[in-house]
Amino acid sequence: MAAERTAHDLIAEHRPTLDRTLEAISTRAYWSPHPEHPKAYGENGSLSMAEGKAAFDALLGTRLDLGQPGTDDFVGGEVSPYGVELGVTYPHADIDVLLPAMRAGLRAWREAGAELRAAVCLEILARISARTMEFGHAVMHTSGQAFMMAFQAGGPHAQDRGLEAVAYAYAEQVRTPDAAEWSKPQGKRDPLLLTKSFTPVGRGIALMIGCNTFPTWNGYPGLFASLATGNAVLVKPHPRAVLPLALTVQVARDVLAEAGFDPNLVALAAERPGEGIAKTLAVRPEIKIIDYTGSTEFGDWLETHARQAQVYTEKAGVNTVVIDSTDSYKGMLSNLAFSLSLYSGQMCTTPQNLLIPREGISTDEGPKTYDEVVADLARSVGGLLGDDARANALLGALVNPDVKARLDAAASLGEVALPSREVANPDFPDAVVRTPAMVKLDGARKFWETADTEAAYMSECFGPVSFAVAVDSTADALDLLRRTVRDQGAMTVGAYTTSEEVAGAVEEVCLEECAQLSLNLTGGVYVNQTAAFSDFHGSGGNPAANAALCDGAFVSNRFRVVEVRREAVAS
Amino acid sequence: MAAERTAHDLIAEHRPTLDRTLEAISTRAYWSPHPEHPKAYGENGSLSMAEGKAAFDALLGTRLDLGQPGTDDFVGGEVSPYGVELGVTYPHADIDVLLPAMRAGLRAWREAGAELRAAVCLEILARISARTMEFGHAVMHTSGQAFMMAFQAGGPHAQDRGLEAVAYAYAEQVRTPDAAEWSKPQGKRDPLLLTKSFTPVGRGIALMIGCNTFPTWNGYPGLFASLATGNAVLVKPHPRAVLPLALTVQVARDVLAEAGFDPNLVALAAERPGEGIAKTLAVRPEIKIIDYTGSTEFGDWLETHARQAQVYTEKAGVNTVVIDSTDSYKGMLSNLAFSLSLYSGQMCTTPQNLLIPREGISTDEGPKTYDEVVADLARSVGGLLGDDARANALLGALVNPDVKARLDAAASLGEVALPSREVANPDFPDAVVRTPAMVKLDGARKFWETADTEAAYMSECFGPVSFAVAVDSTADALDLLRRTVRDQGAMTVGAYTTSEEVAGAVEEVCLEECAQLSLNLTGGVYVNQTAAFSDFHGSGGNPAANAALCDGAFVSNRFRVVEVRREAVAS
Repeated sequence: MAAERTAHDLIAEHRPTLDRTLEAISTRAYWSPHPEHPKAYGENGSLSMAEGKAAFDALLGTRLDLGQPGTDDFVGGEVSPYGVELGVTYPHADIDVLLPAMRAGLRAWREAGAELRAAVCLEILARISARTMEFGHAVMHTSGQAFMMAFQAGGPHAQDRGLEAVAYAYAEQVRTPDAAEWSKPQGKRDPLLLTKSFTPVGRGIALMIGCNTFPTWNGYPGLFASLATGNAVLVKPHPRAVLPLALTVQVARDVLAEAGFDPNLVALAAERPGEGIAKTLAVRPEIKIIDYTGSTEFGDWLETHARQAQVYTEKAGVNTVVIDSTDSYKGMLSNLAFSLSLYSGQMCTTPQNLLIPREGISTDEGPKTYDEVVADLARSVGGLLGDDARANALLGALVNPDVKARLDAAASLGEVALPSREVANPDFPDAVVRTPAMVKLDGARKFWETADTEAAYMSECFGPVSFAVAVDSTADALDLLRRTVRDQGAMTVGAYTTSEEVAGAVEEVCLEECAQLSLNLTGGVYVNQTAAFSDFHGSGGNPAANAALCDGAFVSNRFRVVEVRREAVAS
Repeated sequence: MAAERTAHDLIAEHRPTLDRTLEAISTRAYWSPHPEHPKAYGENGSLSMAEGKAAFDALLGTRLDLGQPGTDDFVGGEVSPYGVELGVTYPHADIDVLLPAMRAGLRAWREAGAELRAAVCLEILARISARTMEFGHAVMHTSGQAFMMAFQAGGPHAQDRGLEAVAYAYAEQVRTPDAAEWSKPQGKRDPLLLTKSFTPVGRGIALMIGCNTFPTWNGYPGLFASLATGNAVLVKPHPRAVLPLALTVQVARDVLAEAGFDPNLVALAAERPGEGIAKTLAVRPEIKIIDYTGSTEFGDWLETHARQAQVYTEKAGVNTVVIDSTDSYKGMLSNLAFSLSLYSGQMCTTPQNLLIPREGISTDEGPKTYDEVVADLARSVGGLLGDDARANALLGALVNPDVKARLDAAASLGEVALPSREVANPDFPDAVVRTPAMVKLDGARKFWETADTEAAYMSECFGPVSFAVAVDSTADALDLLRRTVRDQGAMTVGAYTTSEEVAGAVEEVCLEECAQLSLNLTGGVYVNQTAAFSDFHGSGGNPAANAALCDGAFVSNRFRVVEVRREAVAS
């Protein structure tokens, strides 16, 4: 039986982690409580890799009945990018029943206070952490990520981002004390005395709209930020990536109930094919907060139409790497090759446009022409992915047919410097696995050209496609970078240069256009990866996203503070 | 000559005040560095009351040339609610010249960093503080506030709110360190090392749209929050209340220039009669932040149309006082009488609807019927304002003819319990001075009634009009309170009760509907007054305002943090 744990127990158990997290986000030094090595799992109550696989297998073909009110049906039809039919069904809600039920527990959740809410959130994360290996398979078979990445990005890294959001939410709420005695001197008369109380009050029900590629990593920040600030959270997963978030909801409901709260504070909104429930939910008056990761089109729709809610969006962007010069040519090539290959370029942070001066660059191996750089980078990618086993482990599978269609179309955009290669996956023959393609484009705007070339590199081509864009000079590269970030947005910017002057100029563009910059990465850190507690994911200041993970702005408007003041009697 | 002060000097001078402010907003105990007694002025370089008057008089009929780029004309036509033609003219800008000029100083302002920006803001506030008496007259002769109130609310209290915003802005920016060393263990391999820098980056140009009644008090929070977070600020005053903000801009430009920054980081946008420049400015792409206090209609317009900007609005609301019972009947009556009278009810925080049970209330003077409470309160207001000198000192003047028209129309809405009285102002014969009116209305919704009665008390009747609304019970009062806050918004809620149960129920309504509550005020604190560093002004969680003064949410999205990371070499 699940023993009810008291608030005191929960706080005692999780307060040290909360404090350590608060320290980490203030120093931004490395830290994580969630191990990213598989060997760390299988002890202390966590599932081992084998147990995680078995737990996932046991889920296939089952009904995940979350015990939600207003369930009028069970729906589901996920097919893994690896070809496996998951066969899991989930509750389909009558939202006119579910939404009021979600509001019922809000008062007790508010009265719990910021610290207990944080402890409950940390308990949810701890339970998820123990099932990391199971979640890894769930993320793999919805996103198409290879297992190691699915386990790491969908497990510890996602949990880190959730924990980070809880810490920010907690810190924000306790900036104002619970109570204050206010005594204003009145000269010779008695002072004016007031007793004041301050209560953080959530806004109501938050809607978290999940994405296909990173259901937990992109979903947890909003989910936990809203929950920790006193809101209920309705989780609307991507129809092709329900399982990881349904399991998350299940754990959250269990923990809430065991802690004496209404489990309906967290609920799932699964949908029938083509139902498009996100649009319906997003404009319901009960929905006060929306977190969304996905297309610019729907993100813009939400910002325009869901005016009753605070809307946090991560949309499309065009990520650029400026290649000016390097003192580690091999390091640069291998670093970029990895960045372009990881998860088949299906990360919102994957570089797309590589801006290379037409006359070439200087390197520690002597000058390299534009063509040489492109050829060497193509070779580097080819080498990295030459072995099929390694290629499968890095690339994962294409998440949906649209990505494959974009990849197929890319070859017609320009001269193909690196053709995409089909890779067989012996374990999952139906998986669509492709190595990244690289296409040469000319970045100079010549008056006799049509706008087609520019249209190619000035829009997001989500998937394993990059453009080696020839520019007249590094100065032109910076102009193009500025224009790209300003008009299209960017989650990441990379640059390689040995010149402090150029580095300063790139930095200035990034500061002015509000983009996160990685300089001269040649080792084991990649431009497309950010670490919770230290790196910001997105800036919130360019069109790719209106929020960053994670900062004060991400949490501070998810609740308001209500003050009650009354006259105090002089003591 | 104005000696250039170094950054070091400015920080050394103002850091203690900044630190003390940071402490105050975290304890929310009483504090203010800005004296509210007139006798405190005239020393330490500040203008005395007489000097302030002389300085104001010297401004009349002059051209306030701020030296702004793109000035194509000088405009102005303020007529004091006291009848005085100010005759001051201000630069009218060609915004296609002014806006680019305002952007020119942004880089240096960003590079100054959060601490120096805060120090510059505090220097601006200190210079304004020294001229408080002059500002008092400027606020009096634009808002119609009586001098003592104009001096206090427009002087020290406004400066407090500005300082509070600077402190929040500073605290928010330094939550992330300037730099971090990040070292991630890699088992037996060398750790991954990164050097990271974090820079708060303002969003661009902020637009502060001032209001007629509290040009400085409502204007300073947005102005200083934006400036302190690295933005330039364009101040668009209400056409009838330009002078206090023009003087503010003048001081800010002087201080910026003396500190070595571009004075165009703060500029004024005065307009010709009927030009309606706010609508034009609000949708300019350069404008990234808007602060607005005024009508719901224009606030909603801004939120709908100025989508390129962060929009902070304080709009109309309907403030309620629930009268259930009291153990200080006289105290309650005198407290309410003052609240209703101050500045002729022209505060966004003035109570409008007094909800009184039809069968009466219990008091320390025995039971009082609804009619008795209303008559006693009317008598209390009458007594407070019986003396014309005192009435003038409390009421000030009606700010514009619309207020008078609403007051005149109020008598037709129901039985007049307290008629408005015309008060002569011997110093300013043209001033329109009126005591507040109180009208009896029935708050019960009867099916045979038209909706006219409800329409009266369910919309804001800005000015010296209150409604004594008879309700069937305190429970009905709470229902009406909830409905009023939810539908119309409220800046304040008051309640009188001796029952802890009723107090708890009122508190619960305020928590759920997100309204700031004052309980049982019978002494020298009034529901319409809030103190910076301790009280929140508005909640940001009901339709009256989407932001509160001041909290993390008010500042955190006025800037973004840009990170630059590069590989570090192991030491």
